[in-house]
Amino acid sequence: MTPRRLEITALPGIPLVQPGDDLATLIVAALGRAETALRAGDALVVAQKVVSKAEGRYAALASVEPRPEARDLAARTDKDPRLVELILRESARVVRHRPGLLIVQHRHGYVLANAGIDASNVEPDPVAGERVLLLPEDPDKSCRTLRRRLREATGVAPTVIINDSLGRAWRHGTVGTALGAAGLAALLDLRGETDLFGRALRVSQVGLADELASAASLVQGEAAEGTPVALVRGMAPEGADQQAADLIRSEDEDLFR
Amino acid sequence: MTPRRLEITALPGIPLVQPGDDLATLIVAALGRAETALRAGDALVVAQKVVSKAEGRYAALASVEPRPEARDLAARTDKDPRLVELILRESARVVRHRPGLLIVQHRHGYVLANAGIDASNVEPDPVAGERVLLLPEDPDKSCRTLRRRLREATGVAPTVIINDSLGRAWRHGTVGTALGAAGLAALLDLRGETDLFGRALRVSQVGLADELASAASLVQGEAAEGTPVALVRGMAPEGADQQAADLIRSEDEDLFR
Repeated sequence: MTPRRLEITALPGIPLVQPGDDLATLIVAALGRAETALRAGDALVVAQKVVSKAEGRYAALASVEPRPEARDLAARTDKDPRLVELILRESARVVRHRPGLLIVQHRHGYVLANAGIDASNVEPDPVAGERVLLLPEDPDKSCRTLRRRLREATGVAPTVIINDSLGRAWRHGTVGTALGAAGLAALLDLRGETDLFGRALRVSQVGLADELASAASLVQGEAAEGTPVALVRGMAPEGADQQAADLIRSEDEDLFR
Repeated sequence: MTPRRLEITALPGIPLVQPGDDLATLIVAALGRAETALRAGDALVVAQKVVSKAEGRYAALASVEPRPEARDLAARTDKDPRLVELILRESARVVRHRPGLLIVQHRHGYVLANAGIDASNVEPDPVAGERVLLLPEDPDKSCRTLRRRLREATGVAPTVIINDSLGRAWRHGTVGTALGAAGLAALLDLRGETDLFGRALRVSQVGLADELASAASLVQGEAAEGTPVALVRGMAPEGADQQAADLIRSEDEDLFR
């Protein structure tokens, strides 16, 4: 059943996340500050960056020794060879590159720039020096874990999505996209449903987790003012419990890589 | 400024739209049924299908004579040659095809399946027979016109977006995507903004109109129960007034077509 009304709220006062922090505890506290509590049917959309930070997915550039292939690709993309080495370690293969741009297929299947590795909003470390942040080790698993922890803490198991702002083929600008998901039909299957006149629908599968990821991105923001967790109220998801991995088109099905 | 809270509401009771219907009048009536009125900062997201119907963008298949190229492509994609003829008329070029799939660059620049032409939720015509529905003639212009008509009717000029459910490279499932836009920074430019630590942001341009299009799609639905107009309250958009055309990557900038 399509919802008729959604409320999307950026949870206030989430602190800078440190390795080992328990996101469920931080989220429950933020829900309290927002003067609410989890309800059945709620969805929480959490920015990739804070999940990666909680998981301690930092890499210090000074500790990275680039292989020759990374040095070569760095020269052709105008990037730091140590960063390119980390990108290659996170990737199954390079999809496209040109000066300033390196698009890969991540080992989890996502096609994205720089394997999702990011230096913005990452605190420098006084000992290790300049650091970058990798994607979570297993975003779908991180979602399942956070969902279970929230159920233990509150009695309610929400939909949980980890989102990131990813570029697309054909269009300018990033959009919020689901890297991980638990507790919803991430790829909503409408096959077998019919239109007003009894014909099959043109759209047969909806990227529901990605639409939620984009909706949450509208209140999360990208800059220093950003708030990394959004509460989406009103979805009341039904149907299969799928992973964000179910949204990934396999290489042999895809005409665009 | 990133909004902190959004409400997304499917407007109730929009009737089946007929050619020549005034969408502004239908929307103002639906806002009344929802016991609200337009406020400054509101956005309205309108499904492509109802804009096309209001503009009378029907084509009767019986009246279409396929050119030889359309017959050939129809055989290779398992599609009706008359439909393929219409797709070619709407397109600048064919991007990819295989049995069951025809992806084109629309003459407006969008890369999408079947040039956006659709038979689902289209009433058959007792005289003309089986009909299909083309995209609006100029979706950005349709948005500007609807925005002006709503301002004339209510005194408030909302953001207006026309969305459609489009497939993507690399990922399964469709997501709501902006075909037209007026009254917002459709491609939000963050270049020059900095992170918590004074560094340039990784994300420099956000596909804001597409994120709104996806958010609205969550309440619009695809099936017979669908509601074609969503009110998004809380965006209060600032910045440049751009078109959805600003979201289209030109062919020579794009590595994936």
